[in-house]
Amino acid sequence: MPRRSADQVANSRAATLQTAVQLASVVGLDGLTIGRLAEELDMSKSGLVGRFGSKEQLQLATLELAADIFRRTVYAPAAQAAPGLRRLNAICDAWIKYLGRPPFPGGCFLTTASVEFDARPGPVCESVKQVMDRWLRVLEAQASIAIETGELLPSTDPKDVAFTINALAVGANCAYQLGRDPRVLKRARRAMAQALSRDSFGSR
Amino acid sequence: MPRRSADQVANSRAATLQTAVQLASVVGLDGLTIGRLAEELDMSKSGLVGRFGSKEQLQLATLELAADIFRRTVYAPAAQAAPGLRRLNAICDAWIKYLGRPPFPGGCFLTTASVEFDARPGPVCESVKQVMDRWLRVLEAQASIAIETGELLPSTDPKDVAFTINALAVGANCAYQLGRDPRVLKRARRAMAQALSRDSFGSR
Repeated sequence: MPRRSADQVANSRAATLQTAVQLASVVGLDGLTIGRLAEELDMSKSGLVGRFGSKEQLQLATLELAADIFRRTVYAPAAQAAPGLRRLNAICDAWIKYLGRPPFPGGCFLTTASVEFDARPGPVCESVKQVMDRWLRVLEAQASIAIETGELLPSTDPKDVAFTINALAVGANCAYQLGRDPRVLKRARRAMAQALSRDSFGSR
Repeated sequence: MPRRSADQVANSRAATLQTAVQLASVVGLDGLTIGRLAEELDMSKSGLVGRFGSKEQLQLATLELAADIFRRTVYAPAAQAAPGLRRLNAICDAWIKYLGRPPFPGGCFLTTASVEFDARPGPVCESVKQVMDRWLRVLEAQASIAIETGELLPSTDPKDVAFTINALAVGANCAYQLGRDPRVLKRARRAMAQALSRDSFGSR
């Protein structure tokens, strides 16, 4: 067997993880076994074990890539908008677009992983929590800026805003995946706009 | 083996389904195999097959019981309140309570089943859709009454209200199951109240 360069190894690891993300979005992160992925990639189980070590390591690496795809799809385009309410609205726009045409065949990967692992303590569950917390903090930070600049009332709790926008997206993902009715996404965007109106969560 | 009365058969079927609901809320409806349930009940696989016919029949019966438990826990207590906005608020109160102390160890059964089966067409997916649609229509009907009585603006779309309340509950379930932070439920209730305020979804 010819020796492979470090680049080749990294590339094949990345390609493997891309396939793993696609597969796991349909069969679940728990359905993502070394055997099933090996079959999908038409390679040996021992070759995959050598690459990832264990099913859990494979799951963690897959989750990390999915979180990265999410950030690149939803946050990166919105980062062009001015901080505060404009950026929150740009995030909502990108998020709704992402939900309608998710880069994962089974819909939002993180929602599925969250539902799948919330009752099973361990490293995968911890990792899902961290990814979610990090994302909520991104939303919170933008809500805080919107409060400082007066776009939201001073009495607004930025965590309420972050929770609501996220919950509406999670709920929209579930509803849209179930019926593929595009009106669901429009309803979600309207509800997000309403949650981001100036006096939504504050009292005068 | 002594002959069993029709009552005994019905009782043991009901008891089996109760166990199936508890188990499926943790391992998923797809993880609910005849073998796993037989083990849990300490009975033979062939006995269970005789009772339900197939894994799919077992899944459908389990889903039906879960939907029934949901309605008894969330809708039945709220049905005491006057139709319209009061009943919607009573539903939200019961729903938040249900999310904090779900009768299923793995959190809301229907959210889990929805995420699990949305990418897998077939009778279980169809049944999940029907249960969800039926519930959204209950919420919509109450929103329509609230519009008629002037509690919500005439331009409000009752489907927007139903979608939003449901999405907030689904999002709250996911977040609460992941971190068990009771503040999540308070945030969800505040967001629901805000969505039910008079001019939330209508324009003046």
